[in-house]
Amino acid sequence: MSTSLSPDLKNLPSGEVEKVTVQRITADSRETVEDIVVREFPLTIILNGVELVTLLCSPANLKYLAIGFLSSEGLLKDRDDLKRVTVDERKGVVRVDTKTDVMADSEAVFKRLITPGCGRGASFYSAADTGLEKTDYPLAVTAAEILELMKRFQHQSLLYRDTHGVHSAALCSPQEIFIFSEDIGRHNAIDKIFGECLDKGISTHDRIITTSGRMSSEIVIKVARRRVPVLVSKSAPTNTSVKLAEELGITLIGFVRGTRMNVYAHGERVITTQK
Amino acid sequence: MSTSLSPDLKNLPSGEVEKVTVQRITADSRETVEDIVVREFPLTIILNGVELVTLLCSPANLKYLAIGFLSSEGLLKDRDDLKRVTVDERKGVVRVDTKTDVMADSEAVFKRLITPGCGRGASFYSAADTGLEKTDYPLAVTAAEILELMKRFQHQSLLYRDTHGVHSAALCSPQEIFIFSEDIGRHNAIDKIFGECLDKGISTHDRIITTSGRMSSEIVIKVARRRVPVLVSKSAPTNTSVKLAEELGITLIGFVRGTRMNVYAHGERVITTQK
Repeated sequence: MSTSLSPDLKNLPSGEVEKVTVQRITADSRETVEDIVVREFPLTIILNGVELVTLLCSPANLKYLAIGFLSSEGLLKDRDDLKRVTVDERKGVVRVDTKTDVMADSEAVFKRLITPGCGRGASFYSAADTGLEKTDYPLAVTAAEILELMKRFQHQSLLYRDTHGVHSAALCSPQEIFIFSEDIGRHNAIDKIFGECLDKGISTHDRIITTSGRMSSEIVIKVARRRVPVLVSKSAPTNTSVKLAEELGITLIGFVRGTRMNVYAHGERVITTQK
Repeated sequence: MSTSLSPDLKNLPSGEVEKVTVQRITADSRETVEDIVVREFPLTIILNGVELVTLLCSPANLKYLAIGFLSSEGLLKDRDDLKRVTVDERKGVVRVDTKTDVMADSEAVFKRLITPGCGRGASFYSAADTGLEKTDYPLAVTAAEILELMKRFQHQSLLYRDTHGVHSAALCSPQEIFIFSEDIGRHNAIDKIFGECLDKGISTHDRIITTSGRMSSEIVIKVARRRVPVLVSKSAPTNTSVKLAEELGITLIGFVRGTRMNVYAHGERVITTQK
């Protein structure tokens, strides 16, 4: 929600917002003003010639979103597996061809895509079922660094400031934000980061992921798949995400607000001046 | 995030939260306390003997969630179409049998479930493509009523107050909240309401839906399918949801905060004392 009456689109990412006419209403007044809202873009991913999924997303970094999504879904292992990626922005289509055929059973893929738990029911919710290895990278970060990092992270999104309609995510060291991403979907924002890392060969096993969104099990699994040792949010975790983070060796930090935070798992990586 | 050191579980819905041990950390202090987080529950919906989907949800009103989900997906028209619904809370399974066979082509259903836009790409995003009729119900609500309603709505969630981990939604008249629902997923919270309405034969065409979440096109389509004329949120809409609301006759109100709100479509239903 822009508070100015004539929102300035100049500083915003082109194509990610749209002007709309809005009635600003209080109990006893009504004025018509121009405002901006985030754009919602349908992106269809075609994997090895088969239409896989249409994601609703923010229209930036479509290539990274496609690669990151496929990686998060376990359909793409690494960069060497990519044969060709072509983006058609006008049609809203990304075509990804891989060296190995991962579309042998398309219905199984569709089923699995609805949710990682599909077909496995409640038993999915232990680390053993994810097939992922425990992360034991000895990253050390001070509590003061986390607080400072999240302060900068939350101020970085112009889109959020002006529309309140997006989530953001970032790949960081304890001192620095390396890749910043935003999207109408909290899953997409993280997938865009991992897609860029995969595409450019950027390592993630020694980094921190920050997110504006709530941390459900699916977010922890995404992060564990890329072997990221620390996940930080201003929002809440769920019981399953706490359990998975504990089992998968991930430091899970929530409610980073003001001068404090809650550490739900593997607090040994977080250093305070007084122990 | 409970601010008390020993959270009181007595007043919370049983089973929807879990106690966890948390490190409360600042730059120079660390204390170990008990806190509570929301539970994440995998619910598998089996429709006419075919496993359809596993949703991650809050473990309450599972029957309503299943019915509401099927209705939102267009797989269930009305109450008379239901033959039998059985809930197995222990296994996390709801079996729904309908009178007409809606599972003729399971792959098509799976494809469609991933996102309503699948297979139709960008062309999906006009009202004509949704196949839904325009809502023209002449509900009148004053701006003061909307402000008061949202104030009460936002104070009703004990789960949110204590965990900050859920979204809420409600079915209301301009003066009253009739059905209140909360869930870790903003889609689920609304589906639970519509499921209850469908099950109990409660009308929705003359009501208001309030939500804590952002209003994407999928939310507007859910609401339009149940012919609800007014959708209200404290959060943002997207460009597509504004367009769809305009075309489908829905009054779309966002950013209800303090004493004001933004009306993005069909403001004629909102009355102010000064016109």
